[in-house]
Amino acid sequence: MKIDILPDERIDYLLKDELQIIQTNDSFAYSLDTILLGNFAQKFVHDNHRVADLCAGNGAASLFMSHGNKANYDLVEIQPEMADKAERSIQLNDLSDRLHVYNDDVKNAFKFLEKDSYDLVICNPPYFKVTKGHTINPDEKKAIARHEIMINLEQIIQIASGLLKTRGKFVMVHRPERLAEIVLFCSQNNLGIKFVQPFIPKTGKDANLIIVVATRNTNSDGLILKSDIVVHDENDEYTPEIQAILNGN
Amino acid sequence: MKIDILPDERIDYLLKDELQIIQTNDSFAYSLDTILLGNFAQKFVHDNHRVADLCAGNGAASLFMSHGNKANYDLVEIQPEMADKAERSIQLNDLSDRLHVYNDDVKNAFKFLEKDSYDLVICNPPYFKVTKGHTINPDEKKAIARHEIMINLEQIIQIASGLLKTRGKFVMVHRPERLAEIVLFCSQNNLGIKFVQPFIPKTGKDANLIIVVATRNTNSDGLILKSDIVVHDENDEYTPEIQAILNGN
Repeated sequence: MKIDILPDERIDYLLKDELQIIQTNDSFAYSLDTILLGNFAQKFVHDNHRVADLCAGNGAASLFMSHGNKANYDLVEIQPEMADKAERSIQLNDLSDRLHVYNDDVKNAFKFLEKDSYDLVICNPPYFKVTKGHTINPDEKKAIARHEIMINLEQIIQIASGLLKTRGKFVMVHRPERLAEIVLFCSQNNLGIKFVQPFIPKTGKDANLIIVVATRNTNSDGLILKSDIVVHDENDEYTPEIQAILNGN
Repeated sequence: MKIDILPDERIDYLLKDELQIIQTNDSFAYSLDTILLGNFAQKFVHDNHRVADLCAGNGAASLFMSHGNKANYDLVEIQPEMADKAERSIQLNDLSDRLHVYNDDVKNAFKFLEKDSYDLVICNPPYFKVTKGHTINPDEKKAIARHEIMINLEQIIQIASGLLKTRGKFVMVHRPERLAEIVLFCSQNNLGIKFVQPFIPKTGKDANLIIVVATRNTNSDGLILKSDIVVHDENDEYTPEIQAILNGN
């Protein structure tokens, strides 16, 4: 099968070049956040699992996660160009039997994904609230990926909870500024927070990224707060720990 | 004035020996947690502030904080022996004009402390839930200090919020296992979480202590997650950062 690569696209290689992901330079490429999400969530996946990937973008998290297990992945992405990129990357990596893209609104997920049926729901959502005076990215595609224009945090957590089985896990990457809201909305939707993994950009800096793991129909009184993972060294290079994640070591 | 030191007591010296705290070896002495709380909360204190210290124990946090400002401190401690120790340490340090001990139940605080009047409320509460099958410390005094026998997290947060002015700050040290509950109860009591400072016992270990700062009548969407503070080095000695806190540098 011939996979079309559009003129403005490139192919990025991950996991010691075993994984190919279609990117564009002028749209919203996958970020390190997505790979960190995939890496962290991967440890909870078994071969017989069903995984839902909400706000899947170009599919980088699921593509990354699918390496090393035989689980099935349902990706939901509202933007046609991004969903198309995900679809072609899936074909490029010969994963069409296990990864399926739904080019639809996450808010409609219960219309095409089965409730109470997923072992794992992952999400790299838009991080930023749309508030008066907040400057919105003038590029519409980036704005939808970064700002809560089409969906907000509470709606995402409601949908995630509804898709999960009892004891199923929700794994989300987000900004620490939103941690309190994440805890609240999870609690209101029967998701008990179990892990928080902070990432700091450099030694001594405040965290600028968190990965949160919540389990459906459990309480939150055993939360484990992991020690920081440092992303960049003093030369602005990825630390060995981050480099190992990108290589799948 | 002559301060009685009981036969089973000793005096500990902190802040380059400028602060003396009465301790016992066989009861529940102040812990590093209390000093970390005092150190972290101190930066929010102005000379004209009123501070309430709930579950004050032997007063170590307020004694530590009172060094370097002229604020007034109201300490509430239910255990008579601990309240007495706090009272005598206050006299020993000649702070009786600014630090006052109430040997009473925190749950009664609104009967003797003015609502909506404090700039800062600090708390080093009992950390552990009393649950079936949970082993309770056989020493009753330690048990009350460590387990939620006389008061629980939700009650403490309700009282703290009630004591604070609008924009007043609640600073609490606790275990990360309870972070989600802290966020929930704060949210239910109009306290927006603003800072979380994790402490890890050694490099690479999960956090085992957090200090949380919440502000009354604000929302929680700007939470700052600080980078870890490491408590012990590889030789089990306090790290320079912790040593500096104990010395008040």
